[in-house]
Amino acid sequence: MRVWLLDTGSIVIEHTQLMWNVPGPRVRIPSYGVLIEHDDGLILFDTGFDLEHTEAVLPFEEPEQTPRQTIPAQLEASGFTTEDVGTLVNSHLHFDHVGGNKHLRSSKIVVHERELRQARDHHPFEFFGYSDKSWDYEGARFEPISGDVELAPGLTLYETPGHTIGHYSLLVQGSGASRPMLFAADVVYTPAAYDKGIQAGFHVDPVAGVSSIRRVKELAQQHEADVYFSHDMASWETYKHAPDFYEV
Amino acid sequence: MRVWLLDTGSIVIEHTQLMWNVPGPRVRIPSYGVLIEHDDGLILFDTGFDLEHTEAVLPFEEPEQTPRQTIPAQLEASGFTTEDVGTLVNSHLHFDHVGGNKHLRSSKIVVHERELRQARDHHPFEFFGYSDKSWDYEGARFEPISGDVELAPGLTLYETPGHTIGHYSLLVQGSGASRPMLFAADVVYTPAAYDKGIQAGFHVDPVAGVSSIRRVKELAQQHEADVYFSHDMASWETYKHAPDFYEV
Repeated sequence: MRVWLLDTGSIVIEHTQLMWNVPGPRVRIPSYGVLIEHDDGLILFDTGFDLEHTEAVLPFEEPEQTPRQTIPAQLEASGFTTEDVGTLVNSHLHFDHVGGNKHLRSSKIVVHERELRQARDHHPFEFFGYSDKSWDYEGARFEPISGDVELAPGLTLYETPGHTIGHYSLLVQGSGASRPMLFAADVVYTPAAYDKGIQAGFHVDPVAGVSSIRRVKELAQQHEADVYFSHDMASWETYKHAPDFYEV
Repeated sequence: MRVWLLDTGSIVIEHTQLMWNVPGPRVRIPSYGVLIEHDDGLILFDTGFDLEHTEAVLPFEEPEQTPRQTIPAQLEASGFTTEDVGTLVNSHLHFDHVGGNKHLRSSKIVVHERELRQARDHHPFEFFGYSDKSWDYEGARFEPISGDVELAPGLTLYETPGHTIGHYSLLVQGSGASRPMLFAADVVYTPAAYDKGIQAGFHVDPVAGVSSIRRVKELAQQHEADVYFSHDMASWETYKHAPDFYEV
């Protein structure tokens, strides 16, 4: 399999959001999607944030996104079009993971059934997280799932709730040169948070969040996988960015 | 009934702890106990923080507590001794609500059964909250309860979990001049948080926390009670402080 990380820009969050209740300076964090070329088709995991939405609703997060840092532009840079993506998977439906969904009208959309319900009828404290509803366009072909699911040989979604009610992490295992890649998504944002077991300040169930961090650690060990962090600029700078790719 | 508010000093917390995920400057907050002289005996609700513990384990909270701002000194100022308190109730077992427990060896201790279990075996993210274990001294006479409980005529504990797993709020209703007093404890910290429905940054179940804020609002309306806020300096300065008292 080939795996591209699609750069979708960056936002700024409070340190207490990066690590729950841990004070510190505000921090700029990246967001990205993961494109996988599989024998079963082209699969995209998460689509970053939409610049216009974020500027309008969360301007305090100081979004930065160049015209090249959109999902259509990143797909094109990798040699594809939006029509090529057969399956879109959302780890969860927060604004910084669904912003490009609306450009992928040919895809079916795989998402946890509880996440889909929650995003449409969320708690008041989840307002900013679920503020971008553009993923819920008319005619969107959702394929709600639950439990751990093997999407295709070597591509498995693991339930990791806590940050949101129906959160998934993705394991990519193949016979290529790269070790298995475990995209934890928002179970934790950074390596330091992972090591210390500190979840993000935004969450719906912190007790489940603790279990999910433990689960990611167990999966990484069991599958000898490298954990890829969703929102850490230092880690992001060490990753290969599209059009460069991993062979897994 | 006579009701005294016993001043136990103040600490400093992050704004994102005062109001979950809402940034702002660090803020000094009061802590206090509530002493009730009832026909059934003398009852104390919460005992503030212990200065030595807080300086040792949470120095970043900059505790301030004069020798007059301890539970024994405040009881004495109100005309009582620690031996006079027959019933001690803890809204929950966080360090800033149990610091004076150890001075009240004659009291039985009423606390939610789930809170008692949790405080002894808590989640990692609850470390600082449950860091003072001095309430769990040998021979402590716990009376674990669950559900809403009428402690004595006019004194009712209402389950309001979220901030902690077994959190109680206390309603004091009598035939005195003062309106009923509803001590919400840590369901919310401030009037602004109450109005906006924003719970504290420390919590174990934010979904329950939302329900508990709603519950306090319903109780206040139903019983025409004034809500007393646990951790708001501006409110605290408008309250009567021991040895002054309310007649409820």
